[in-house]
Amino acid sequence: MLTFIGLGLGPEGISLQGLRELQEADVVYAELYTSLLPGFDISQLERRIGRQVKRADRKMVEENPEEILTAAREKRVSFLVPGDPMVATTHVDLRLRAARSGIKTRIIHGVSIASAAAGLLGLQSYKFGPSATIPFPDNPSTRPYEILAENFNHGWHTMLFLDLREEREAMTANEAIGIMFGLEERLKGSVFTAESLTAVVARAGADDVLVRADRAEKLQREDFGPPPHLLVVPGRLHFLEADALEIFAGAPKEVVQWHMSRR
Amino acid sequence: MLTFIGLGLGPEGISLQGLRELQEADVVYAELYTSLLPGFDISQLERRIGRQVKRADRKMVEENPEEILTAAREKRVSFLVPGDPMVATTHVDLRLRAARSGIKTRIIHGVSIASAAAGLLGLQSYKFGPSATIPFPDNPSTRPYEILAENFNHGWHTMLFLDLREEREAMTANEAIGIMFGLEERLKGSVFTAESLTAVVARAGADDVLVRADRAEKLQREDFGPPPHLLVVPGRLHFLEADALEIFAGAPKEVVQWHMSRR
Repeated sequence: MLTFIGLGLGPEGISLQGLRELQEADVVYAELYTSLLPGFDISQLERRIGRQVKRADRKMVEENPEEILTAAREKRVSFLVPGDPMVATTHVDLRLRAARSGIKTRIIHGVSIASAAAGLLGLQSYKFGPSATIPFPDNPSTRPYEILAENFNHGWHTMLFLDLREEREAMTANEAIGIMFGLEERLKGSVFTAESLTAVVARAGADDVLVRADRAEKLQREDFGPPPHLLVVPGRLHFLEADALEIFAGAPKEVVQWHMSRR
Repeated sequence: MLTFIGLGLGPEGISLQGLRELQEADVVYAELYTSLLPGFDISQLERRIGRQVKRADRKMVEENPEEILTAAREKRVSFLVPGDPMVATTHVDLRLRAARSGIKTRIIHGVSIASAAAGLLGLQSYKFGPSATIPFPDNPSTRPYEILAENFNHGWHTMLFLDLREEREAMTANEAIGIMFGLEERLKGSVFTAESLTAVVARAGADDVLVRADRAEKLQREDFGPPPHLLVVPGRLHFLEADALEIFAGAPKEVVQWHMSRR
């Protein structure tokens, strides 16, 4: 039996059901390379559940999952994942491998950063179009800009996740805004300009979470503290969403009004 | 201080952080009318945290939130919400009212059904377009069909939530499929036909969760057990997503292949 358990966000994001499963498990693995989990401390979790947690790195999960599958064939195995499991393709792949070799699988969900970020900004989650990840410039892609342009034309909100390197180097919102300005210029677009109402969510789920909304150029010069960060570009705003951006994210009224007049 | 705490899904979906906050709160309210939480028992939670939980009904939250705000002005108040807080507009409104009267607010996130449903089906969450709710036929709307048609043309997945009446009467996936067939006919569309690959998620997060994918007409005749249910109409499928629908949701290979050839 292989149970995927979401760690949610922050040090105590796991659900009561997840904790109970961990306490009953024979073997516990944790995969901590697909996202940053601010404040999470694996040894604190080990003390809480009274057992050792094995680190599963990318190589083990993607190239050599036999150790995990062999354990799951005979024992009750928990596989811990930041956020909600199955957001990364690699977990779907592992679950498929397990199922194909006759191992029962199960998911205990965790809070996803996408849902948390929308809620922190007061933006309605059903109004988000598809999302994209902004890659580092040495691995460029026009996809985030294309997704944003398509969503923006429809009046939908766009969530842009920021790249994370294996060596735990995470892109900042400042770098991401610069990359989006570069794409706008290169593709001769008119969607993401210096004036564009943009939002930043830093450390969603942590005690020192920070949300900001303002003109993109203004945000590019601010300091949001340690990662993870993400960007949201709002589409058409309901008046409650506009109020939330002003009150919770400090968006200047005139920036929000300019955005609403433009849409 | 007013802290919105997500109950996540199922009886033990709340996070450790949420539970800790409840234990430290002076007053605890629970809003349980915006969604069904299968298996959740408020008296079990009361026993666990050793205090009474006050029920906040729609009238209290939307028309007369003064009781909650007055308490939050002087005390540490927790406001429990199914899933992730701020998904319903009414919570954003309450948070804005609190902030405007100088009350500090905070969110402790919970698992959202949208993220869980995508993960259960093995569909990538970043490929979902905007979502919609299918209302009961006495309150008809073409919006779910329009959202689906737009997403489908782009190759994006669509999540369709099902209406819930205050008296706790929840729409089934069977009814929802019938309503979508009706909209297809009325709007002379060609997106949601009897042959369309469709998925149903029933009781996401509960122990008896059920996921199915098949031709819409076939699903319309199946029994998924008690609500809540939701529908997902897949768009363009990555091969891992196609495999996941076959293995975890029992989609027949030929139905998935027909879908992929059509896209």
